[in-house]
Parts: sequence; C-alpha cells; structure tokens
Amino acid sequence: MSKLWGGRFARGTDALVHEFNASLRFDQRLAAQDIAGSQAWARGLVAAGVLTQAEADTIVAGLAQVGEELADGRFQFHPADEDIHTAVERRLTELLGPVGGKLHTGRSRNDQVATDFRLWLLDACDQVASLLTDLQQALIASAEANLNLPMPGYTHLQHAQPVTWGHWVLSHFWPLVRDQERLAQVRQRTAVLPLGSGALAGTAFPVDRQALADELGFTAVSQNSLDGVSDRDFAADFLYAATMIGLHLSRVSEQLVLFSSSEFGFVRLDDGYSTGSSLMPQKKNPDTLELTRGKSGRLLGHLVGLLTTLKGLPSSYDKDLQEDKEPVFDTFDTLSLIIPIMAGLFRTLTLRPEKMAQQLEPNLLATDLADYLVKQGVPFRQAHHLVGEVVQLAENRGVPLTALTVADLQSVSDKFGVEAAAVFNFATSLSSRSSTGGTSPEALQAQLKAAQAALPKHGR
Amino acid sequence: MSKLWGGRFARGTDALVHEFNASLRFDQRLAAQDIAGSQAWARGLVAAGVLTQAEADTIVAGLAQVGEELADGRFQFHPADEDIHTAVERRLTELLGPVGGKLHTGRSRNDQVATDFRLWLLDACDQVASLLTDLQQALIASAEANLNLPMPGYTHLQHAQPVTWGHWVLSHFWPLVRDQERLAQVRQRTAVLPLGSGALAGTAFPVDRQALADELGFTAVSQNSLDGVSDRDFAADFLYAATMIGLHLSRVSEQLVLFSSSEFGFVRLDDGYSTGSSLMPQKKNPDTLELTRGKSGRLLGHLVGLLTTLKGLPSSYDKDLQEDKEPVFDTFDTLSLIIPIMAGLFRTLTLRPEKMAQQLEPNLLATDLADYLVKQGVPFRQAHHLVGEVVQLAENRGVPLTALTVADLQSVSDKFGVEAAAVFNFATSLSSRSSTGGTSPEALQAQLKAAQAALPKHGR
Amino acid sequence: MSKLWGGRFARGTDALVHEFNASLRFDQRLAAQDIAGSQAWARGLVAAGVLTQAEADTIVAGLAQVGEELADGRFQFHPADEDIHTAVERRLTELLGPVGGKLHTGRSRNDQVATDFRLWLLDACDQVASLLTDLQQALIASAEANLNLPMPGYTHLQHAQPVTWGHWVLSHFWPLVRDQERLAQVRQRTAVLPLGSGALAGTAFPVDRQALADELGFTAVSQNSLDGVSDRDFAADFLYAATMIGLHLSRVSEQLVLFSSSEFGFVRLDDGYSTGSSLMPQKKNPDTLELTRGKSGRLLGHLVGLLTTLKGLPSSYDKDLQEDKEPVFDTFDTLSLIIPIMAGLFRTLTLRPEKMAQQLEPNLLATDLADYLVKQGVPFRQAHHLVGEVVQLAENRGVPLTALTVADLQSVSDKFGVEAAAVFNFATSLSSRSSTGGTSPEALQAQLKAAQAALPKHGR
Amino acid sequence: MSKLWGGRFARGTDALVHEFNASLRFDQRLAAQDIAGSQAWARGLVAAGVLTQAEADTIVAGLAQVGEELADGRFQFHPADEDIHTAVERRLTELLGPVGGKLHTGRSRNDQVATDFRLWLLDACDQVASLLTDLQQALIASAEANLNLPMPGYTHLQHAQPVTWGHWVLSHFWPLVRDQERLAQVRQRTAVLPLGSGALAGTAFPVDRQALADELGFTAVSQNSLDGVSDRDFAADFLYAATMIGLHLSRVSEQLVLFSSSEFGFVRLDDGYSTGSSLMPQKKNPDTLELTRGKSGRLLGHLVGLLTTLKGLPSSYDKDLQEDKEPVFDTFDTLSLIIPIMAGLFRTLTLRPEKMAQQLEPNLLATDLADYLVKQGVPFRQAHHLVGEVVQLAENRGVPLTALTVADLQSVSDKFGVEAAAVFNFATSLSSRSSTGGTSPEALQAQLKAAQAALPKHGR
Repeated sequence: MSKLWGGRFARGTDALVHEFNASLRFDQRLAAQDIAGSQAWARGLVAAGVLTQAEADTIVAGLAQVGEELADGRFQFHPADEDIHTAVERRLTELLGPVGGKLHTGRSRNDQVATDFRLWLLDACDQVASLLTDLQQALIASAEANLNLPMPGYTHLQHAQPVTWGHWVLSHFWPLVRDQERLAQVRQRTAVLPLGSGALAGTAFPVDRQALADELGFTAVSQNSLDGVSDRDFAADFLYAATMIGLHLSRVSEQLVLFSSSEFGFVRLDDGYSTGSSLMPQKKNPDTLELTRGKSGRLLGHLVGLLTTLKGLPSSYDKDLQEDKEPVFDTFDTLSLIIPIMAGLFRTLTLRPEKMAQQLEPNLLATDLADYLVKQGVPFRQAHHLVGEVVQLAENRGVPLTALTVADLQSVSDKFGVEAAAVFNFATSLSSRSSTGGTSPEALQAQLKAAQAALPKHGR
Repeated sequence: MSKLWGGRFARGTDALVHEFNASLRFDQRLAAQDIAGSQAWARGLVAAGVLTQAEADTIVAGLAQVGEELADGRFQFHPADEDIHTAVERRLTELLGPVGGKLHTGRSRNDQVATDFRLWLLDACDQVASLLTDLQQALIASAEANLNLPMPGYTHLQHAQPVTWGHWVLSHFWPLVRDQERLAQVRQRTAVLPLGSGALAGTAFPVDRQALADELGFTAVSQNSLDGVSDRDFAADFLYAATMIGLHLSRVSEQLVLFSSSEFGFVRLDDGYSTGSSLMPQKKNPDTLELTRGKSGRLLGHLVGLLTTLKGLPSSYDKDLQEDKEPVFDTFDTLSLIIPIMAGLFRTLTLRPEKMAQQLEPNLLATDLADYLVKQGVPFRQAHHLVGEVVQLAENRGVPLTALTVADLQSVSDKFGVEAAAVFNFATSLSSRSSTGGTSPEALQAQLKAAQAALPKHGR
Repeated sequence: MSKLWGGRFARGTDALVHEFNASLRFDQRLAAQDIAGSQAWARGLVAAGVLTQAEADTIVAGLAQVGEELADGRFQFHPADEDIHTAVERRLTELLGPVGGKLHTGRSRNDQVATDFRLWLLDACDQVASLLTDLQQALIASAEANLNLPMPGYTHLQHAQPVTWGHWVLSHFWPLVRDQERLAQVRQRTAVLPLGSGALAGTAFPVDRQALADELGFTAVSQNSLDGVSDRDFAADFLYAATMIGLHLSRVSEQLVLFSSSEFGFVRLDDGYSTGSSLMPQKKNPDTLELTRGKSGRLLGHLVGLLTTLKGLPSSYDKDLQEDKEPVFDTFDTLSLIIPIMAGLFRTLTLRPEKMAQQLEPNLLATDLADYLVKQGVPFRQAHHLVGEVVQLAENRGVPLTALTVADLQSVSDKFGVEAAAVFNFATSLSSRSSTGGTSPEALQAQLKAAQAALPKHGR
Repeated sequence: MSKLWGGRFARGTDALVHEFNASLRFDQRLAAQDIAGSQAWARGLVAAGVLTQAEADTIVAGLAQVGEELADGRFQFHPADEDIHTAVERRLTELLGPVGGKLHTGRSRNDQVATDFRLWLLDACDQVASLLTDLQQALIASAEANLNLPMPGYTHLQHAQPVTWGHWVLSHFWPLVRDQERLAQVRQRTAVLPLGSGALAGTAFPVDRQALADELGFTAVSQNSLDGVSDRDFAADFLYAATMIGLHLSRVSEQLVLFSSSEFGFVRLDDGYSTGSSLMPQKKNPDTLELTRGKSGRLLGHLVGLLTTLKGLPSSYDKDLQEDKEPVFDTFDTLSLIIPIMAGLFRTLTLRPEKMAQQLEPNLLATDLADYLVKQGVPFRQAHHLVGEVVQLAENRGVPLTALTVADLQSVSDKFGVEAAAVFNFATSLSSRSSTGGTSPEALQAQLKAAQAALPKHGR
C-alpha cells in the first residue's frame, strides 16, 4: 500500500492496477527536474516559515544525493514506487528520516508534476531549436554551394518553369523559420510556473511563488490554481509545433525520394544515409528519407492522442492527464533523430547537374513565350491561349517547342516575331524572375542574406 | 473547355471531373478578397510598366462593379466557372473587353489564391479574437458577481478542497488568454504576402511586392516563391488554435453539464439556452453545452484532415492544397457559434448556492486538518497519514469527520488538540489559500484584476 | 417556441441557439427515410392498439403526401422546424389535424433519428459498393489489356525487379476487395433496428419490433434500448471503411502522379481527366489524382472528428451525437466523386510502353544474377554479396551491368560461368516468378481469374 | 557495414542513421514468429528443390536453438543487428556455417516481416478476444446480480426515465459484442499469407505457398505480390477495432466516474481499484477509470498515426511501413491492461441502492403521465404538451409532481382522472417498457439470455 496516500485505505491496490497506474517507467525522465523543483520548494518553505534554514539545507543536500544516485544509476527503485516523485521522496526519507516528510508540505503532486514537466520541456524546446538551427545552416550551405544551378521547377509534379537548386533548397528553409517561431512561442507558454497551486485550490503556506519562478527559470507564475494544475496547452502546443516540423521534413523527404529515383536522378545520397536490400544486391535505398516521411504520421498521432484525451475533461486535475508525457517524450526523441539526420543528409548529398540539365526541356519556357507576347502588347489571357495552341502544335507533331519555326509560330499568331526564338534560353528565363523571392541570381543572393539574418541567435 | 487554360487541350473536361475540380461552391466566400487583391495587382502592374494608368483605372473600376454584383447577388455564375477567381476574370472581360485579359499578367492562380485566402483569414482571426474577448468579459462578470461563493472543488471528480464560483469561472478564463495569444500569433504568420510569387518561380514583371503588401494590409512579403505558393502553415495554425479553443470550451461544457444535472444542481440554464424532449415532457436539456462539447471533435477532425493532406506533398503548388479552404471556413463558422453562445449562456446562468452548500461536507477540509498538524510540528507526510486514519475512522463509523470528538482524534494521534475542531470552517479554509492563484478573497480579487488587465485591447 | 417540446418552457430559445441547435440544414437528406420509418411506425401502432387501422391509413397516406412535397421541392420549411423529423410531423398535423399528433406515441426522436440514419446508410453502403465494383472492373480491364507489358518494379521508389502493367494495376485491385469486405460488414452492423427503443428505456406500447425490422429491411433489432439510442458504431465503421478506400486511392493516385511526370512518363492522362494552368500555357496537370490523394486527409479527418466526439460520452442519448451526420454525408459525397473518377481515369488512360522500356535497365536483374549463383550451389547470402560487388564494379566503371564481361564477373567469383549473361533477359526474369501472386504470365493469368471471381455479385 | 546487404556499399551507415533505421528495439517481439516462419520457409525450400532435406533439418534445428536462446535471454545481440530477422540469420550462420546463408533464398525481408507481423497479430487478436469475453462475463454477472435494481435513466445527463442497474450494465455489453465481431473480422483479414511474395515481384523458386499457409495457420495466400508486401490494412483494422474498444470503455469509465462522485454516489470502487492523494488525506480516486478514459486518446492517436503514414505511399514496400509495429504493440499492451482492469473493477464494485433511490424523483415519470393521457385518447403530441404544463406548474410551486392534486392536474386538462396518481409508481413504469431491449423485468431476463448466447465460443 502506498506510503504516500495509504492512510485511509483498508487494502492495497490490485497488482495489475498498480502496473496500470504507475508512471515510473516513463517519468524517470523527469528525475533531474524533480530534484531541482524540490530543492527550490524546500528553500521556499523556509521563507514560508515551514522549514528552518537548517532543515532546508539538510533536505537540499539530501535531494542532491538522491539526484546523484539517480544520475549515476545507483538509485534502487522499489516495486511500490508509483512515480519518480514518490521514489525521490521515499529515498529522501530513508536518507534523512522524518525531516524528509516535511518537504511535501503545501505542495501536491498535481502542481509538482506540472512543474517538473514544464521544466523538462523548456530544455527540450531549446535542444530542438538548436537542432533546427543546425539543419537550417545545412540548407543554407547546400543552397549557397549551388545557388544558381538550374533545374526544372514543378507544380502538380509537372514541369512548370525553371528554378535553381538554391531556390529549391531555400524553399525548405523558410518553413523551418516558422517552426522556430512556433517553438519559441511554445517555450514562452511553457515558462509559467504552476508550483504553489497545490492540489487545485492554491497553497495554504505563504510561499513566494515569484521567487520560485525566478530560481527555476520560469518567466511568470500561473494566475489560477485550478488552471495551474490542469493546463496542458504547453504540451499540446509542443506536439503541434513538432507535427509541423515533421510535416515540413516529410515534404523535403518526399521530394528527395523522387529526386534520388532512377527516373529523376538529380541527387545521390551518401552511402552513410542509405541502406541496402536483403534480397536485391543492387539496391541503395533512401530509408532515412522514407522513415522521416513516415514518422510525420507518428507525430500527428501523438498530437491527436493528447487532444482527444484532453477533450471534455473538467478543469483541475484528472488522472487522464498522466497520458501527457509519453507522447511528448517520444516526440522529442523522434525530432532528435529526424532533424540531425536531415542535416547530415544534406551535408553529404551529391548533386547530379547533368541529370537536371537533361530535364530542362523547352516546355518549361512556355510562360516566357507568353510573357514575350505580352511585351508585344497582347493581353496576357490571349497570349496564354496562343501559346497553348503552339504547345499543342508541337505536341501533335511530336517535336519540342524549339523545333517550331517562326513560320509555325506565325501560323498561330502574327504577333510572333523572329526574335521570339530568343525566349528559349534558360539563363534568361531564370534572370527574368527577379522580384523578391524569385529565382533570378540577384533575388537568390538577397534571399540567402535574408535566410542568414533569419537564423536564430541561440544562447537565450 | 476552360477559357483560362484551354489552349493546349483538344477536348474538355469530363463532367464529373469538372464538378470534382471546381471549388466555386466554397471559394465564393473569397469574393471580396479576390476583388481587393486584383485591384492591388492592377495598380502594381502600372508601376511595373505592364498597364497604363488608364488601363489600370478601367480594370479597378470594372472589378469594383464585379464586386458589387457579387455582393448584392446579381452576379451570374456560369457552369464553366471553376472558381471565384475564374468567375471574376471572366466577368471582368465581359464588362471591359480584352483589357480585362491583361489583369492576370505575371500572376498565377497559385499566388492569387494564397493571397485571397490569407486576406480572408486575417479578418477571420480578428472576428474570432473579438468574440473571444466578449466571452472573456462574460466570464469575468460571472466571476465578479459571485467571486467568493463557496463550492466544492474537485480533482478526479471527487471532493477535494473548497473553492469558490469566482475561482472556478476564472479557471476557464486563462485558457482563453492563451487562445488569444495563439490567435495573434496565427495572425502574424498569416500576414505575409505571397502575391508576386507567380506560379512557383516568381514573377517576371517588376512589381513592387512591398507596396502590394502595404496596400493590402500584410506586414511582410514571402521570401521564397516556391514556399510562397505552397505554404499552408497559416491555415494549419488557425485550425490548431481553433481546436484548442474548442477543447477549452469542451471542458467548460462538460463541467456545466455536470453542474446542471439533478445530482449536482449547482446551476440552472436559462430557457433560451436549453431545449426539450419530443417524448419526455419534463426534460430541459443542456443541448448547447453538449453540442459545444461535441463540436470539439469536428474541429480536431478538420486539423487532422488538413495535416494529413499536407503530409508528403512536394513544395510548390499541388492541387491537394485546394483542400485547405473548407475546413477553415467550417471551423470559423463553428467558432462563430460556440463562442458567443457560451458567452450568452454564462450571462443568463442562474446559480444555486444552496445546492453548492449541500455538498460542502467536512471531508473537503481534511487537508486543512493535516495542515493543522503540520503547524503543530508534525512532518507533513506523517500528518497526511494520521488524517487518513481519522478519515477511515469516521468512514467506518459512518459519520462525518465533524462528528468525531477530540478524544477520537487523539486516539489516532496526541498531536490533535482541542482547537483542532476550529479547522472545520469553510471560510477559514478558503482564506488560508492566499498565494497567487489561490482561492482566498484577496487572491481572487487580485486575480480578477489580472484578468481584466489580460483582456486584449482590440483595434489593432 | 418548439411545438414539439415547449410545454414546460416559459420562454423560447435564443436565436443563435436555435441556429446552433437546428440540424435541418443537413438532415433534410433523411427525408425519404423519415417518411418510410414513420409509415412503418404508424402500422406498428395498429398492432399495438394505439391507432385504429383507419387512423394508420390516414397517417400513412398523409406521410406519403408529405414525402411527395419534399421530393418535388414544394415542401415549405418553417423557421421553427428544428430538424426534418419535426418538419414532417408539423406538416402532417397541418394536413391531418390532431390525428397527426398520435404518430409520435411511444417513440422518441432518439430512436427515430437513429433509425432514419441507419436506413440512409444502408442505401449509401450499397451505392458505394456498386461504385467500387465498377472501379474494380476498370482495373481488371486495364490489367487485362496490358497484362504482360513489362515495366520497372520499385521498392523504396528505387528500381527493384521487373514487373508488368497488369501486375501493378492488380496490386490496386486487391485492396478494393478488402474495402468491399469492410463495407459489407459495416452494412451488416448498420442493419440493426433501434426503433422501439424510445428515448432510452424502451417503449411502453407493445409494438412488434421484429415486424418493423422486416418491413424496413433491417436484419435484426437492437437488444438494449440504452445502447439502441446511443450506438454510433455503424457511423464510425462507415467512416473507417471510407477512410481506407480513400487511403487506397491516395496510393494509386500518388503513383499515377509519378507515372505521368516527364521523368517517368509511363502514362498519359486523358484531357478529360486533366486540367491546365492559368499562367503556364503548356501545363497539363493531374488535378483529379491530386485531389483524390488530398481528399484522403478529409476522410480521415471526419473519422477522427466523430471518434473524438464519441469519446467519454455516457451511454444513452446526448446531443453531441448530432455531430454524426455531416461527416457521414460528406464522406459519402466524397466517395461518390473519387471512385467513379478513378474508374473513368483508368478507362481513358494511355500507356507509353516505350517510356517504360527506357527504364528497364540491367540493375533490375541483379536478383536474377544472385539466383543464378544459388543455382550454381552458392548459398544465397554469399551470392547476394558477390552480386553486390559486381554492381559496385559496374558502378565504379560507370557502365551498366551488361557491359561487364565474363572475365569481369569471374574477377569477383569463379562461380560465374559464361551462361551468366543469359540472366539479362527481362522476359526470362518475369517468367521465373511464377508462384501465386507473382509476375509471370501464367501467374498473372491466374490472378486475373481470381480477381474476376472476387468481384462482388450485387443485388443483395 | 551490414552483412546482409553491404556488398555494393563503399562505406557503412552513419551512426545516428543506424540507430534511426534499426527496428530491433521493438521488433524483438516478433522473435518466436520469425523462428516459426523461417522454419516453415526452410521446409518449403526442400519441396522447391533449393535445400536438401538434410540441409533443411539442420536449419530447422539451428533455428530452434536460436529460438531457445532468444526465449531464455541467452541470445547476444550485436550492434550491427538491424532487426530481429537479421539477428536470427546472423546467429544461425554462426551456429551452422554457410548453410545458414541458404535460408534467405527466394525470400525478402519485405515478405518475411509482413508474415511475422501477421502471425503475431493473429495471436494478439485471440488474446484480446479472450480478455473481452472475460469482461463481458463480468458485465453479465453484474447485471444479473442487480438486474431489476431501479436507478434513474439519463439523456443529456438529465433525469429521463427510470431504468435498472442490469439494464444499464448490459448497455455496455452489446458494444463489446460488436467489438468481438470487428476483432474476428480483423483476424480473418490478417490470416492471409504474404510469404512467397519476395521483395515485390514474387519468388523465383517453386515454393508451395498454400502449404506454407497451412503450416503456419493462415487461411489463404495473398494474390498479388506487390500488394502482399505493402498491404497494412490488417494493422490499421486492428488499430481501428482497438480504438473502438477504447472508446466503449471510455464511455463506461465516464459514467462510473460520475456514479462514484459524492453527488451521485451510486457506486463505490473497491480499494484495489482506487488510489489516494499525496496531499489530501481523504481522497479515494477512480484513477483506473480516468486512465482508461484517457487512454482512448492514445489508441486513436495510434490509428491516426498509421493511417497518415500510409497515405500517399506507392504500392510495394517503402520503409515508411516500418512505422506499423510500435503503434500495434503499444495498442495491444494498452488493451491488455484496460480490459482486465475493467473486468476486475466490475467484479469488485459495490452498489449503493439507497443513493440511487434518492434520485428516483417523480419527474422521471412524466412520460408515463403522458402515456396515461394517450390511453385516455389524447393524441400523444397534445398529451406531451399538457404534461409539460403540469411540470411547469409543479416547478413554479417548487414542489414535486406528486404533490399536485387531481384538481391541479385537471386545471391543466380535464382528461386527467383520479386514477392519474397511480402513474407515479416506479415498478409500474419499469414493467411497462417490455418490448425487446426495454427495461421491464421480462425484457431484461430475455436480454440476459441473449447476452449469454452472444458470448463468443473461444477455442478456434
């Protein structure tokens, strides 16, 4: 029977129920945070007149020892330890005797768990942000190295207009800027201290909550104790931000899987980022990309799981909330793999400009031909239609657009002049799209600068 | 066959495919934004040297007329109109002749749609924020009116410690503060102009994108044209923010459904917010609360739908992205019902203090009894255990805690003195939890002030 | 104020609440089912002694008239009509006077709605099954027409082993067989009559429920009235079955989008199943495939929405359950587009064997080379490794496998004989995989027969 | 570098990539299935002429030894073991030498993994079915013990009509019958053998797949090898079936949480199924019910995760499919806790009839009063309205319905006779609802029999 709450119980918990109820298996991960939070609480209880300074010192030192035992693996868990919080207090009391039993004064596991979890997540946000920054740098480096390398641009996976490798790579940089923004906002909403909310109604001992917040690195204290113990927005926000990261990486992955196929062949993955087949000796598979793409489902699943769990719960603490941790931990672990692996993959990626060049066919310049007509004074809608007819003419003859003569073009419209052929130049086409965000060399140079400026300065 | 893109096509679209492909049914909602966006574009084309000022004036005026036709219902849609953008351009050309065909120069539906949709969402965010503020005010008013009315506080839906109506109501206020934060952040990420991204590669005409942004009320321009046409983070962010609002309201609803049951009876819904039964004449059902609770599923469903649609898409435009609008529109409509209805419901709610009082039983003060022992120098963990035994003693006798004599208490521990009985006072208990966020009168007074200060100042 | 349940109410419903609460907007779709269900109920009330035969005849005829008014659009809805059930009873009473008020005896909207909805879904299942069968036939026809046309087979989107068009197409047939199975099982679970469950506790009039079931085409009656009014498993089952259909079609779509790219070029979509670009005149986009792929998100969203709504609801009726219909209706509408469009798309698809042939490169036969070594007595694992070295040798030289001489092969292993070159024959490779499900001509012939045998025989 | 597929690779895998790619951490769980599948395959290779009988015997015995090492924990995993399949083959070859390298002939991990996973799931389905049956028996026992114990019935959580404990408990039995149906259907779709599909194109060795299926307990063989390696419907079906079980248990849990509150007080959980509070000594919390309710989110999350992962994947094998196992394993583990715990909880639950009786107030009989009027010839709709007025009259006076005199009733309608008062009898009311599924003693007796008949007969 629980030492922690067993006073009123005639019998102990069913064995299966104990297993069901216990969260120690996963909340061990909060050990360091639990120690730090409890040390702060012990100091707070001095100011509140509950502990003498000497008692607090004893408890703080005892907690430090428990923390060391946990950190170096000497800590012995007992079957009756429900969770890390129980285990720490149990061990503390073994070490210190009854004074250990004073630590939980005015505190509940409800506010304690929420505090530990937030502390952990603050650190997790920082780690993810740092990994993201590294990936952003890898993308910038890849873009920079081949900023103006021409390749086909696609919409609907059909050849659309020419773009460049640098342009394409940077199109995956900006989503990460938004991810960094979201993460920073999650961090901010996480940095609100629930400790001092008690079980639900606040604490009856005059603890200085702002001092606790300052000591533990929170930027604010929760304003309502019922909300303080039941708010899990920060966990949901993190899962959402992570899902978006996963989504963005699934989109990069999808394209690199295509680009590394025989048919595209634009890139070759390094051996270190590929694997083989147990049956087919020739295979070199982009498993890393596929797993990254696949794991976007897992991340979304965790988000849905938590939101569904939260739906319809009363405010204040319900045990359903214990389901908050595993999805957050697994999400963090997943991000800790997919982000650096994507960075490494880009850093070791080989481009194959000759395969890109093979795909630079004249249809990609059809818009340029229409733009040419516009410059001859043809309204765009009509120009578009005329070029459509030209395309159909070439297709019916089974030849590329460039094989059409001026006479052919003029059979469609007399607005086509001899200089129309000059349109069929990829460098010219690329250069023409020079407004902000476009694919011209100057626009890309500017974008690269903007990207560097958008990198987060870590060390908050 | 489409006038817009039919040039290269030998035959028209299959009828079912046309229905499938067409988005007019729902994107009509973007009519005003499409007009405004096109007017700005026409002006931009003057500076870019594509249109003369006179042509632009003609087009802007023509668009205004189309806008009026749309606004007052005179606009005649044609079966061939795929979407609102097509319909507007078609009508413009009917009105103006070939000059109308110049409007689409340098622009694609890809950047046009993204621009219209963002414009719409900026307004939608403002409307939702304003509705939320009104709900927040209704909660503040309800809290203020009965700030210190005692009621049982629950954890695990079991009697835990006494709280007050004001405390409970405000526990639903702070989640809305976080919702407002999220909404403001969504708004900020939405206010980035994609116009000028062309189909994917940027525009070949020197349009001043920053000027377009300023004219249309965007705060920035997109930095990469591929990302500009494929980014739907803003829509996902909105759906997530809305899901969180729905989740918060599902939690209020759940509790009010409980509180309005016969067994709790703490509140009585106004007739205007209740409905009856077709079979059972006595019924007065909290349908509004149940629907609000139920609709949290719908909101989450929309979020999941969009995120799954986005998963694994290449950057740049794919038609899958057309699935972005319906969930956003339905989400906005859902919020536009559930938020004001919740506000109205609180404003007309009748409290039943006598039913709350009935539930204020002594067990709610067990923690206070433990705290009493703490103040006698008993370590909290031991105090907790001793009070647990006291509770069991009372339960075994089938009497409330208050029916135990001092001798009874002392049979459990000699630390109980005669003054222990003074613990059993709800007002004292409430007053004792006076740290920030607690349930004491002063703490609640301070919280009320903090809540008022946290209300958004609209009129951005 | 509601005629239906307003007796005990002092005031009517708030206007916004009325809009919120009303389901008429979408449940009109149940009109025919409501009429049929009510006619059956009227007949049942005769046997139960509640109505005389003459009264029942009057009511049945009146309902028929209401049904006609609804069917031909003459029916006038009133602002106070909450839902289709209310509207029908209101109109019936207008037509018949007080006898109309007898119809609802012993019945509640709770069991009535569930009955109507199930009736509707039974029909919807049949329609979807029939559309699926048509799609299956289109796939069979496509497979049959090019059963043995060789093309590269992929795993990880890398060239793996040769397969054929017929083989590939049929790989999308069998998932639909499983979809048909699921649909049939949904249908079976839907065909359980709730009518006679009353509001929750059963009906107090001796209606013969089995006779009602027989008349309305249900195969069983619900066994517990509380479950009868609250069970929405059938709706969830349908949404799940539909989500799986959508998922399967998303997988076909993804591949056809790839196959219709310039880089693959294996297929050309008919103009009727393609659309163009407003900007780029050369574009022919596979919008139908992209939308189909994208709508898999929408279908999953509906499933998640309903399941989240149902989570944590008590048994018996809660208003949250009203959220069951819109996702089901939209899901049916979505399936009614994507399934026949996919069938039409396959029926009009042009294959490009020359593009497939271009991709049939020797690496696809590396497994065959390893199998050759196995037949020379080399353990497979070693054979796999040796061929891996051969592949690396060719790759290092930048030549295809077939450019290696026997001497080259023997430099890797002396198990390679002169006849090893015979391995590089696609027809031989295809023929070798002749076990059930394999890609050899006989295996495919057998599979085609199995597919035809697996087609559902409709006309249940 | 992988022994399995490293032949063509110049360098090994990046360390983080190895960790990312490896599935050994979780697929160890398939050890027994991998051994059994490989033994069957070895035997199949004899008939196919690949192995001699002696070689097969050696391999089968070697696999048996590997299996024992795995089962008793002696097996030493190597850092290079990617997954359980690799580990088993590696160890086999250590034990047997080169002959071990013959096992993988004609087989790929793609068909091997799918086979192992299905084998595992077949067993898992049987275990879950058996746990469900036990829970169903616990519900039947609880219903039987208090079949006719009256309690209030609710709709919208408002008092509706009287029901009984047996009726209520059985309302949670029938959903489990549907769960059993779904599980059996999942099992059937799982029992299709993919082995012999090779990597994607079938196997080139004449293995008798039907014989393999028979030996391993599958009921059919897959009909298309591409589908054989990529089909994960069975996993999704299982996750869906599990989600529905979780949903049903969330509904029971929600109600029992309510019923065990102070305000309802209808049941008391056994100490073995409750836990206490670290702060509040009096608390006895229904944690088991809350966790069960909460875990419905987790189950739905897993379903969404897998479906999102599958969305848009080509047919044939992609590495994304590796994400199929963890959600299935965790789902099984979750079900293995929540189902037996719910059974144990019901078996130890204490009912409190006196608290139920307290809530049996006259309003619950309002429908009976309307039915009384119907029997006096008043059309139901009018009767409903009249009783609504009676209810309002009582409410305005602040008295129960039973406090109204006949004169009071007659002030509303002269159809009320002196015998109207007889309506206010709970036993009569319960008895009146005697059609199938109703709450009368005979109907419940019949339902109990039907429930027993609906229990699955295990031992398939």
